Amino acid sequence: MSRGEERISRVAVVGCGTVGASWAALFVAHGLDVAATDPAPDAEERLRTFVAGALDQLAGFGLTGRGRLDFVPAMADALDGAGFVQENAPEDEGFKRCLLAEIDRALPPDVLVASSTSALVRSRIVADCATPERVLVAHPFNPPHLVPLVEIVAGTPEAAARASAFYAGLGRRPVVLRREMPGHIANRLASALYREAVHLVAEGVASVADIDAALCNGPGLRWALMGPHMTYHLGGGEGGIAHYLAHLGPSQERRWASLGTPSLTPEVQAAIVAGIAEEAAGRPIAELEARRDRGLIAVLTSRTEVAADAAPTPPAPGAGDPA
Amino acid sequence: MSRGEERISRVAVVGCGTVGASWAALFVAHGLDVAATDPAPDAEERLRTFVAGALDQLAGFGLTGRGRLDFVPAMADALDGAGFVQENAPEDEGFKRCLLAEIDRALPPDVLVASSTSALVRSRIVADCATPERVLVAHPFNPPHLVPLVEIVAGTPEAAARASAFYAGLGRRPVVLRREMPGHIANRLASALYREAVHLVAEGVASVADIDAALCNGPGLRWALMGPHMTYHLGGGEGGIAHYLAHLGPSQERRWASLGTPSLTPEVQAAIVAGIAEEAAGRPIAELEARRDRGLIAVLTSRTEVAADAAPTPPAPGAGDPA
Repeated sequence: MSRGEERISRVAVVGCGTVGASWAALFVAHGLDVAATDPAPDAEERLRTFVAGALDQLAGFGLTGRGRLDFVPAMADALDGAGFVQENAPEDEGFKRCLLAEIDRALPPDVLVASSTSALVRSRIVADCATPERVLVAHPFNPPHLVPLVEIVAGTPEAAARASAFYAGLGRRPVVLRREMPGHIANRLASALYREAVHLVAEGVASVADIDAALCNGPGLRWALMGPHMTYHLGGGEGGIAHYLAHLGPSQERRWASLGTPSLTPEVQAAIVAGIAEEAAGRPIAELEARRDRGLIAVLTSRTEVAADAAPTPPAPGAGDPA
Repeated sequence: MSRGEERISRVAVVGCGTVGASWAALFVAHGLDVAATDPAPDAEERLRTFVAGALDQLAGFGLTGRGRLDFVPAMADALDGAGFVQENAPEDEGFKRCLLAEIDRALPPDVLVASSTSALVRSRIVADCATPERVLVAHPFNPPHLVPLVEIVAGTPEAAARASAFYAGLGRRPVVLRREMPGHIANRLASALYREAVHLVAEGVASVADIDAALCNGPGLRWALMGPHMTYHLGGGEGGIAHYLAHLGPSQERRWASLGTPSLTPEVQAAIVAGIAEEAAGRPIAELEARRDRGLIAVLTSRTEVAADAAPTPPAPGAGDPA
């Protein structure tokens, strides 16, 4: 993994739940050595099982690199010699603040330390670090070895650029936030959409399964290819987004005013749970996850093949591999 | 096109803008005869140009049916002998109300009349019809010959079932609303997400291009495969949606409370327009549309191949073809 003078060959993965294990698989498949650590008693076994399955999936993208995967019980040993740290501890602000300070103390000041936090903001979790400018948020989407997005919130433009280069070299699509925001970008967009999806259940407009079907057979298909702004640019006809906003902006604002503000009352939760039971039709979570992963691989592959010149397109998987 | 005793061989397409032309192509590719009408002076030429391109795309799905495509200037002639009507007139309530009443008067009462309206509600546009129970909303997503979703709002369960069978036979995914709602389902979800996307621009959190990239490299990829409720079901780990709601429901509600309520002020519009110019990087709308369509075809094809048993999955293209 190289960026000009910077060459990273060993990554410490701190916290080996689903997110950490998925990161570990991605790193290993790109030929990076990983030192992973997690205090849970069965952590190593779960990690190795997950990584084995993920490596099979990544081989389908031609990612056949095989770095070493060491599991080490003591975090200090995992950090020793690491050129990059990916932290994936539980989403507890006090704990993460303490953990990042400990990681920070153990490493030379030029090593980047990236937190996968989805819900916490950088300024608060780096507060006890001696060298906070090298500690950043790099939030992936599940599962990170497949979904390209990495949202970056850094303390300095240099840290943002170094982290972006690292992730881009792993076939990820880094997006750098200009300022921190709870939930970053993508989870805020998802949360806004989910609020209305819950509202439509609460109001009895359609079943949970039909609301889900409306998204993934409609706008969700387009959003695998382009974001909301570009979508409305194409919705404006030959005049594009300027025409769209001038002619349909007022109706968007009226629609916004009509959106629901539901609460997750026990009744609404029960309706959602019952609706999911109907939609899942007895299929266990593991089966649904496996199908999602197969679907993600197929969509990512098809998207790359069709739109090699697309913007935005994630860097081709493997582009940053050490040769 | 058959459903038990019902066999439709000729469809009237009233209004041949982008939506009507795309419907016409879908019908023709499934072997249905189309009688199309539109008062615009160059309507026939635009229609035939669009349909020719769309038929090439549909042939890629194995849809090589070729019904007749007649353009007839007088609406009465288009309706004569039609077994189904797809209306795609401008989104003006008074005009559509008047037009639907005229269509209703011209046809035997058992012929379904479907309006493609996205913004109007059924109860108001059927108000002047003598037989409103056979007039329904069947709202597609652009372009309807590629995107499977059809949102149905009908006056009777029988009309909803007949229309659903018709569209399912065309490889579409009908979703029946239990009651009417302005914007139906999918555009409300899209509008909720767009509001937050505009908020993030207005607050300077990221560029328009990066916000778009965050969606289509993150949650948008998953939403091509499953909807928001199922996504959170998988986000709940082994406990599924019930676990998710019990443990993360409160944080969703806090997130909802933090979402933005932007206005499309001149400054915000200018920021969006400038951001799109940067993202489009000089590519004209037609090129972006062509790439979107190629991408949609690739994603739909890959999705069908991978998840033949997926729910929700649209019926396989061609499944309802007259043999």
